[in-house]
Amino acid sequence: MATINDNYLKLKAGYLFPEIARRVNTFAEANPDADMIKLGIGDVTEPLPEACRTAMIQAVEDMGNRDSFRGYGPEQGYPWLREKIATQDFQARGCQVDASEIFISDGSKCDTGNILDIFGKNNKIAVTDPVYPVYVDTNVMAGNTGEVNEKGEFEGLVYLPISAENNFTADIPSQKVDLIYLCFPNNPTGATTTKENLKAWVDYAKANGSIIFFDAAYESFITDESLPHSIYEIEGARDCAIEFRSFSKNAGFTGTRCALTVVPKTLTAKASDGSDVELWKLWNRRQSTKFNGVSYVVQRGAEAVYSEAGKAQVKALVSFYLENAKIIRQKLTEAGLSVYGGVHAPYIWVKTPNGLSSWDFFDKLLQTCYVVGTPGSGFGAAGEGYFRISAFNSRENVEEAMKRITQKFKV
Amino acid sequence: MATINDNYLKLKAGYLFPEIARRVNTFAEANPDADMIKLGIGDVTEPLPEACRTAMIQAVEDMGNRDSFRGYGPEQGYPWLREKIATQDFQARGCQVDASEIFISDGSKCDTGNILDIFGKNNKIAVTDPVYPVYVDTNVMAGNTGEVNEKGEFEGLVYLPISAENNFTADIPSQKVDLIYLCFPNNPTGATTTKENLKAWVDYAKANGSIIFFDAAYESFITDESLPHSIYEIEGARDCAIEFRSFSKNAGFTGTRCALTVVPKTLTAKASDGSDVELWKLWNRRQSTKFNGVSYVVQRGAEAVYSEAGKAQVKALVSFYLENAKIIRQKLTEAGLSVYGGVHAPYIWVKTPNGLSSWDFFDKLLQTCYVVGTPGSGFGAAGEGYFRISAFNSRENVEEAMKRITQKFKV
Repeated sequence: MATINDNYLKLKAGYLFPEIARRVNTFAEANPDADMIKLGIGDVTEPLPEACRTAMIQAVEDMGNRDSFRGYGPEQGYPWLREKIATQDFQARGCQVDASEIFISDGSKCDTGNILDIFGKNNKIAVTDPVYPVYVDTNVMAGNTGEVNEKGEFEGLVYLPISAENNFTADIPSQKVDLIYLCFPNNPTGATTTKENLKAWVDYAKANGSIIFFDAAYESFITDESLPHSIYEIEGARDCAIEFRSFSKNAGFTGTRCALTVVPKTLTAKASDGSDVELWKLWNRRQSTKFNGVSYVVQRGAEAVYSEAGKAQVKALVSFYLENAKIIRQKLTEAGLSVYGGVHAPYIWVKTPNGLSSWDFFDKLLQTCYVVGTPGSGFGAAGEGYFRISAFNSRENVEEAMKRITQKFKV
Repeated sequence: MATINDNYLKLKAGYLFPEIARRVNTFAEANPDADMIKLGIGDVTEPLPEACRTAMIQAVEDMGNRDSFRGYGPEQGYPWLREKIATQDFQARGCQVDASEIFISDGSKCDTGNILDIFGKNNKIAVTDPVYPVYVDTNVMAGNTGEVNEKGEFEGLVYLPISAENNFTADIPSQKVDLIYLCFPNNPTGATTTKENLKAWVDYAKANGSIIFFDAAYESFITDESLPHSIYEIEGARDCAIEFRSFSKNAGFTGTRCALTVVPKTLTAKASDGSDVELWKLWNRRQSTKFNGVSYVVQRGAEAVYSEAGKAQVKALVSFYLENAKIIRQKLTEAGLSVYGGVHAPYIWVKTPNGLSSWDFFDKLLQTCYVVGTPGSGFGAAGEGYFRISAFNSRENVEEAMKRITQKFKV
């Protein structure tokens, strides 16, 4: 008899976003005239940069001629893309990252889940709370946790709370953990971090033989040049960190699909016989065996992000969303709400008013303002009493949503 | 201390194709003037169909307007693509497959590896020998095998030999196995099967509670209308089979990346408490959590495969490669070699002459004819003494390669 992976049965009934979709659909059916504005899921709304589109059309045309046709590409990505990333995203910031250490993929969600393939089952794993749910769920699916408790915490995981009380900066763990997920600028809180804080993490990881999974999907939203975009800006990080990046939120590739993961060749972890094994080799084998590379057309689109025109267009796109975030911050503050994030990130993290639970505030905002956000508790127990609002929408929709909220919640 | 997944250390040093690339590069460096013809890796060479290109260019243009821009799509694929596949690939052949049972992905290689995520670790797994190496390697990586022996066989797997002696049709196992990989038309042997044979597999699977992984990546190459394209043409298969399909080999999407997996909603496997769990729900959860859907532009390209123009262009493409296969069969037969496959598949499976080993024949063909093929032993112990030649190349190259081979090997 074929058997299933029982770990899947430990997962909570619904991933956060399907539950939101369910409530939104129910409301929409009951209120067909309600003009809803969605500031929930972190999905971009503005057109793909022209430089990317032009490059993609050229790439499609390449596919029409035998001589320029591309079949299977390198599973790791084309050298012309990997080299531009290495030079412009990393070496230009003083990070010692070589093109061969960059693996192009179809998404950071995929990579942050798949990376567990190359690690053992006996690692102690730490996540912040609140946290991007994929980090937790993929560990549950991989059998790295026990059962879930009534607070939604999985046995075996180490939760590092982040809230206004600690300025959304997790304390360095007092116990030993082997794998640590860090996300800066942070989803969902919109907080970011300093080089000093990252240095403390790198020092901890090096002292304990831990590996940091550094999710930098939102690095392009950093507006203060003194803040780190990459963990490799920190000395020693090449010995303890894997970094994930994406074209989704800078160049608007959520529907186009391209991301990258950096695995330094200097990075090792322990085999059960105590020997040190290079993680680059394992990830390279994983990707070569279970992945066939990103579409040539999409990689050409991603390459255009590094052209002069592409850089200017991406910068304009990010500035547009950051201006939305600024408007959201201002208006919610005027409405008497406590807001965090939204300066170096497209997310504004709001304390719910009057001690409302996250889901009660979700329902209230939906029903009275026709505005959809994301309940903070969906990101973890310590997110209860918070609410995430995304800056990914048109200016008009952001302004209209804020008008409705300030009218309802004005103190 | 972070630990690695030790199962990766059980893998053999090189995946087959990197080893071929290594030998080819060494030869090319030593013989820079040798005009090599590659009939090794199963990669298409002819342009992407015009219908696909036109649709992809339109899709890129959609991305340039706010109103037609697409962000995150459904992780399972867009309904307009899933519905066309359900109707034209399955229902038109009498298969009861619903659009909701089709999951669009970026590749069959990914899907045949990732599918193991939802299964338990205690399944008995059967593969044919020779076999597509990814089936074996992904099981090794997942910890479903023991160590490898000197023949290249992994402890714990059940190998079902296929060779000229059994007409390249594996015997139904005498022992109980839980997961079975079948690939028809077959990679690497080019053999295909009958409805009667598939019926015997379905009956076996139903009697034993087994799940068949049916890889139909090459179904468009079937030239005899009485042969099955899908396992769902067999009654009962909805209760015991998952089918994998790809746009790589019919529409030439090896560099464009699109595939699909069918998981019937009627399919279950056992949880450890003995209850039956729907595999559709597990795969849906897996894909929603660890995957973000295929590029919108690529899905529009795949959709165009189902237009009238697209169907005609794909048919012409497949016919072109089949004519190559016919030429290869004829010429190698004239040269006195024993050949199999190549009638319903783009692969010709050749018995090496004079008892040469697969790798010796590889080296000889490379060094004397400048022709690259694939050693049969790379697909498994029972592939020793065979050699795979691919029909994916230009007519001119195929004819030239056959001229060289017939000159060298003429009996």
